[in-house]
Order: sequence, then C-alpha cells, then structure tokens
Amino acid sequence: MSHNSGAILVLSGPSGAGKSSLISKIVDHIGPTYFSISTTTRAMRVGEVNGVHYHFVSVEEFKREIEEEMFLEYAVVHGNYYGTSLGPVKKALKEGKLVIFDIDVQGHDAVQNRFGDITTSVFITTPTLGELKHRLHNRLTDSQDVINNRIEMAKREVQRISEYDFLVVNDNFDEAAEILISIAKAARMKIPTLQINEFIQTWETS
Amino acid sequence: MSHNSGAILVLSGPSGAGKSSLISKIVDHIGPTYFSISTTTRAMRVGEVNGVHYHFVSVEEFKREIEEEMFLEYAVVHGNYYGTSLGPVKKALKEGKLVIFDIDVQGHDAVQNRFGDITTSVFITTPTLGELKHRLHNRLTDSQDVINNRIEMAKREVQRISEYDFLVVNDNFDEAAEILISIAKAARMKIPTLQINEFIQTWETS
Repeated sequence: MSHNSGAILVLSGPSGAGKSSLISKIVDHIGPTYFSISTTTRAMRVGEVNGVHYHFVSVEEFKREIEEEMFLEYAVVHGNYYGTSLGPVKKALKEGKLVIFDIDVQGHDAVQNRFGDITTSVFITTPTLGELKHRLHNRLTDSQDVINNRIEMAKREVQRISEYDFLVVNDNFDEAAEILISIAKAARMKIPTLQINEFIQTWETS
Repeated sequence: MSHNSGAILVLSGPSGAGKSSLISKIVDHIGPTYFSISTTTRAMRVGEVNGVHYHFVSVEEFKREIEEEMFLEYAVVHGNYYGTSLGPVKKALKEGKLVIFDIDVQGHDAVQNRFGDITTSVFITTPTLGELKHRLHNRLTDSQDVINNRIEMAKREVQRISEYDFLVVNDNFDEAAEILISIAKAARMKIPTLQINEFIQTWETS
C-alpha cells in the first residue's frame, strides 16, 4: 500500500548551501518525483527559463491567484512575491509521486500545517557562515546587496533548524548526496493518517 | 557532525510479522549498530541463548534492577517481566551507533519520552490479520494459548500505528527489507537537539 500514496520532501537552507546541485544529483536515484516550481514576480535572471526555474508572473497576476486561493503559501522576500501553487502538488501526490519543495522556513511551516503526516523535512547548510559567504561571493551572480540579504536571511533561518526532521551539512558533496538519497527514499514511505485508518480496518477484517 | 552522534531505530509490530528476519537481513547494510537486548524473566525457549536473544534473569534479580533504576522501561507481558537496560544504550549512542530496539508499543512510548529527538520508529506488520494467524500457526513453536495472546496483543497494537513514523507492510520480504534499509540509513541522521544548538552557535561564529 505504501508505494501508491504520494509524499513530500521539503528542502530548506540558505542560497549557496548547494540545494539545487544536490537535487540534480539525487533526482535519478529516488523514484518518481515532482519538483514543485514556485511562482514569482521577481525579474528573470540570465539563464533562467520560465516554467523550469520559476513561473514568472506579473504582480497583478500574482494578486489574482492569491484571491482565488490557488497558493499553498506565499511570501514576500527581498521585495518580490514568491508562492507555491496547490494544484500541481495535489495532482502529483495522487499519482504517487514524491513532491520535492525547495522553500524557506515559512514555506516549510505552511507545508507542515497542510500535509504534516506525509512530510519529511531537511535543512541543508554549509559547515559555517564563513563558508556560506565565501560561496555566495564566488558565484558572481548576485550584487553585494543581494548577498547581504541572503546572509541575513540565512542567519535567521539557521535558528530554526530544530523544526526540521534532518540537518544535512554540505561539506562533502557526494556524502551529502548519499545521505539525501536515503532520506528521500524513506520520505516516500510516509503514509497519510486517513490511509492508515483504512489499513487498520481492512487489516482486522481480512 | 551528523555522523558521530548516535541515533535510535524502534521496530514494533506483532510476533510473526517478520521483524527478526528483516533485522538479520538489513544489519550488514546500515553501518554500525547496537541491537538492544531485553532482559526478561520468562523461560528460555529451545534454541535461545542467554545474552543473545535475551538476558534471562530471575524475578528477584529483575525487581532489584527496577529498584536501582537500571531500566529505560519495563513491562509485564503474558505474565513475564520484560525490560530494557539503559546502560548499554547510552554507551552505544556515545559510540555513534544506531541503536535498534525490537519493542512493543509501550516500549516505544518510553523511548520517545526519553530520546524523542533522535528516534525514528517503524511499525512492521503482515498485510492482514488472517496472514498473521497463518504465520503464527505455521511456526509450530507456540502453544495455542500463546498464539491467542499474541493475536489479541497484535489487534491492540495495530490501533496505534499512527504513533509511528513509518508503516512497513511485510508482504514481499525483499521489498520490505529494502524499505527498512532506507529508513535505517535516514534514521542515523537524526541529531540531538542539544547538538543542533551547539551547531548553530558554532556556525554563526566561524
């Protein structure tokens, strides 16, 4: 039974901790997944593709979707709207997929509130703040202002690691990927409470 | 850091669901483990070895250990005392091992209360009650009274599956073992709250 019900894996942690690279590395080793794509009003960066990295929409469009309750959660970060659409998530769960979220601590809250019984959460970080600063500067994609914002956000988010099921310290990339594969495979085994109640009833009478 | 701190894996579920066989199958694939051996006052069965299957002690000895607070938990089941000694568990955790408990629902409660932050729990069961009865009768090791007791206990324990992190239905042995390996590897990554707080402090200042 456990193989047919979808489940959720939340990945949080500072930009620069290596979440995206880790996801790319593990995605072929953990069975059918759906990677939740956020909707945002922020400007597209060089190399980004609409519908792949984000759904890029106008502020007007975003506000319309808020009114129609199409978001699991949304937030304003660094002056831009970011949101998670509920429709594709429900569809992927129905198909028995592992839905992967790359979201912040607030987003994690929203997922826990709505899907707590089938959610496993992982906080991914660099070994130190110094190492995070080093990586952010080396990326050369962001302005100093953006980097400073990311660092301030990282400092706040790290305070809430204990709200997560697992902490993965990305000091050795291959080791971190290995750990994440185990966690993702286990995450898939979480079963909705409703389905457990059904199982118990069936179990007793057969 | 996560590799040096011990963690706990609790396995519960009816006798006859295949816990022992599954543990034997997975133990070489999940890194350093310590298998918690219970202490009991029940009679040794044919083929059992003192210090391997259980620490077999007299009722007097057991009561002395209760008074000296040497048990994480103890219970009376089918008229016999069963207990879990705390000393070896603490030692194995200090050595960074994954401590595996094969205990009942009450025992799981006690472990959660004491070690909740580093504990992952799995309920293992047969697909149906009928299949459990079938397996228990086929073992030929137990009297009808003992079998009836086990079935009554199974019916009660199954009601509490939702208290566990994972449900593994042992219908296909190899699949169940595969799932349990993933869960055990992930379980090892649970980090004590105290150690997370230390990590946060170190992270910020380095």
